[in-house]
Amino acid sequence: MLAAIAPSVPVADISHLVPGFDIDRGARMLEAALPYYPAGSVHMGVVDPGVGTDRRGIALRAARGDHCVGPDNGLLIGAAELLGGVTEVVELQSPAHRLHPTSRTFHGRDIFAPAAAHLAIGLELDRLGRRIDPATLVRLPRTGPEVDVGTIRAAVASINAYGTCQFDVVDADWERAGFAGRSPIVVEVSGGRWTVPHVLTFGETVADEPLLFEDSSGRLSLAVNLGSAALRFGLRVGSWVRFRTGEGGATA
Amino acid sequence: MLAAIAPSVPVADISHLVPGFDIDRGARMLEAALPYYPAGSVHMGVVDPGVGTDRRGIALRAARGDHCVGPDNGLLIGAAELLGGVTEVVELQSPAHRLHPTSRTFHGRDIFAPAAAHLAIGLELDRLGRRIDPATLVRLPRTGPEVDVGTIRAAVASINAYGTCQFDVVDADWERAGFAGRSPIVVEVSGGRWTVPHVLTFGETVADEPLLFEDSSGRLSLAVNLGSAALRFGLRVGSWVRFRTGEGGATA
Amino acid sequence: MLAAIAPSVPVADISHLVPGFDIDRGARMLEAALPYYPAGSVHMGVVDPGVGTDRRGIALRAARGDHCVGPDNGLLIGAAELLGGVTEVVELQSPAHRLHPTSRTFHGRDIFAPAAAHLAIGLELDRLGRRIDPATLVRLPRTGPEVDVGTIRAAVASINAYGTCQFDVVDADWERAGFAGRSPIVVEVSGGRWTVPHVLTFGETVADEPLLFEDSSGRLSLAVNLGSAALRFGLRVGSWVRFRTGEGGATA
Repeated sequence: MLAAIAPSVPVADISHLVPGFDIDRGARMLEAALPYYPAGSVHMGVVDPGVGTDRRGIALRAARGDHCVGPDNGLLIGAAELLGGVTEVVELQSPAHRLHPTSRTFHGRDIFAPAAAHLAIGLELDRLGRRIDPATLVRLPRTGPEVDVGTIRAAVASINAYGTCQFDVVDADWERAGFAGRSPIVVEVSGGRWTVPHVLTFGETVADEPLLFEDSSGRLSLAVNLGSAALRFGLRVGSWVRFRTGEGGATA
Repeated sequence: MLAAIAPSVPVADISHLVPGFDIDRGARMLEAALPYYPAGSVHMGVVDPGVGTDRRGIALRAARGDHCVGPDNGLLIGAAELLGGVTEVVELQSPAHRLHPTSRTFHGRDIFAPAAAHLAIGLELDRLGRRIDPATLVRLPRTGPEVDVGTIRAAVASINAYGTCQFDVVDADWERAGFAGRSPIVVEVSGGRWTVPHVLTFGETVADEPLLFEDSSGRLSLAVNLGSAALRFGLRVGSWVRFRTGEGGATA
Repeated sequence: MLAAIAPSVPVADISHLVPGFDIDRGARMLEAALPYYPAGSVHMGVVDPGVGTDRRGIALRAARGDHCVGPDNGLLIGAAELLGGVTEVVELQSPAHRLHPTSRTFHGRDIFAPAAAHLAIGLELDRLGRRIDPATLVRLPRTGPEVDVGTIRAAVASINAYGTCQFDVVDADWERAGFAGRSPIVVEVSGGRWTVPHVLTFGETVADEPLLFEDSSGRLSLAVNLGSAALRFGLRVGSWVRFRTGEGGATA
């Protein structure tokens, strides 16, 4: 549909590897990628278990000048906030800018791609449908970390292809907990406790050694050098982990 | 090879995920995708277990103005029919439009991509080889459904990444069987019998509930909401399923 | 980063499927692909287990006019030699041609892609950092075959998605061993011995039959028609296999 409507617009394909139905995983991928695209880009994301229900299809403009197109299920909004926040949103209703017949199960092809392609060739956002209130957009529930002096509890937010586990824990949380610069951290997972070095880069550890580091999106991550932290510590997305200072952990 | 011969022609990469040797799966992917490309596109498809044998390499023109390039093993012809049917075919024989030395095991690189790239920059089809009779093209055997009043038997035609099972059953078959609009359907698989709702969209069912629906290519599909019908019903490509009206099935 | 810095430069994405940390697999993929790109292309490769250590980031020019960008860990050099050899190399140090802040774990995004994009829009190589001696570049250790009259021992160099096993054995080795044209070869793997036909193409064998052939990069390969040689013979990358002429093997 992009080639048919906007043949001269270059397309960059971020990924087709988001697991089925995993809106949060898709949202995190968009949050990691979209800020690096040039301002004014048109972004389409489709992870859409509610396709064909009354969940809305939307196109939004972000303050930076980008447009985002996809389902109103929380997939787009985190990335839109990183692009400066949502300034306008429309519900995709224009019959002139969708494929006919319109299937009930493949809106990526029939509604979202035509809308994105039309925006990419200069269509005004308001031509795609009626304005809706940005405050009504669906947001994903995200459980932030529990931070106390000397301890942080956080759920695994995502796990990448290497098995590295990312937490929604950023510098400010680390400071609130009063963790000293690069002291080793005790990592507690159900049934286990390990002292893990807190490093800047994998190279400060040896093969098979676990490590805590700030990843390329500024979030705390637990990895194993040349290995998988998910396998080593038995972690899945949503698993709770406790980080604390001080002694008491065996070396993993 | 595309970048070397046709550097200014945009390339859209549909998929590299067709399982090895599965010509029918590749053909169905092309049938689902090619009609949505702009008329006049050049399409290359390679699923080619017979590479290096006397199976022919071909380039064809379809009535819509598109060209399709690949092996003569049935991969292209279904899609070409959706593009209006084959109007001309040549066997790829021109030494001037292939890579030298020409390997015996990688015609995607050495023969098909050069031919497609040359067509994309305007080469006439006849320059690639001698005309052959479209009636001699290899076709895939496909077993259509068995339709009687009140019952349809069909084999699973394909299974997508979600585990949704597609059948070569279209509206006309449904009507011939006399199935009423949206009544539940009894689905019989070896050893089991379930009553499954016949819906327009996933949203009419709840998580883990099976459903029958017309998919985005107009074919009957059996899915499980947020799950896998292939796993739930133990289905593989080629498995036979019987659909009938009336009572008698447990709810899956 | 490519779209942001070099929006009008076409990008071809070879693969994201190199297994994590497998520099040799990545290097072989680049060796198989880069010679077919047009001379003067800019190639970026990132398989980078040493990211954030003192391993250098480099950009090199090859005799053919291409540039290669990535980590100095052996990933690029084999391909560069196929492009005519390395003529100049710089260490990527220019603050003006990287992303700020620069992460310690994602140099693909922060250092390599910006460097490649700047080269693609015409930046001079020397603007990216200081010249270094090509002789100091890291090279991958590769164990060549052991060739005697009548026998060749070689380790599996790579295994593709079909399970076909490739060896670093080329025509010259075959001749040194004095193997006759297309006689069957005895293949010895730990605990087993099979006589395998030596053919030009898969089509000379039947389904499930093993075969030896020269693959599309000119290397000896062991395959199973419509099957997996890795599974059939229990081979992994690095497994040693002995090939010899003469009788004595059961048919696999």
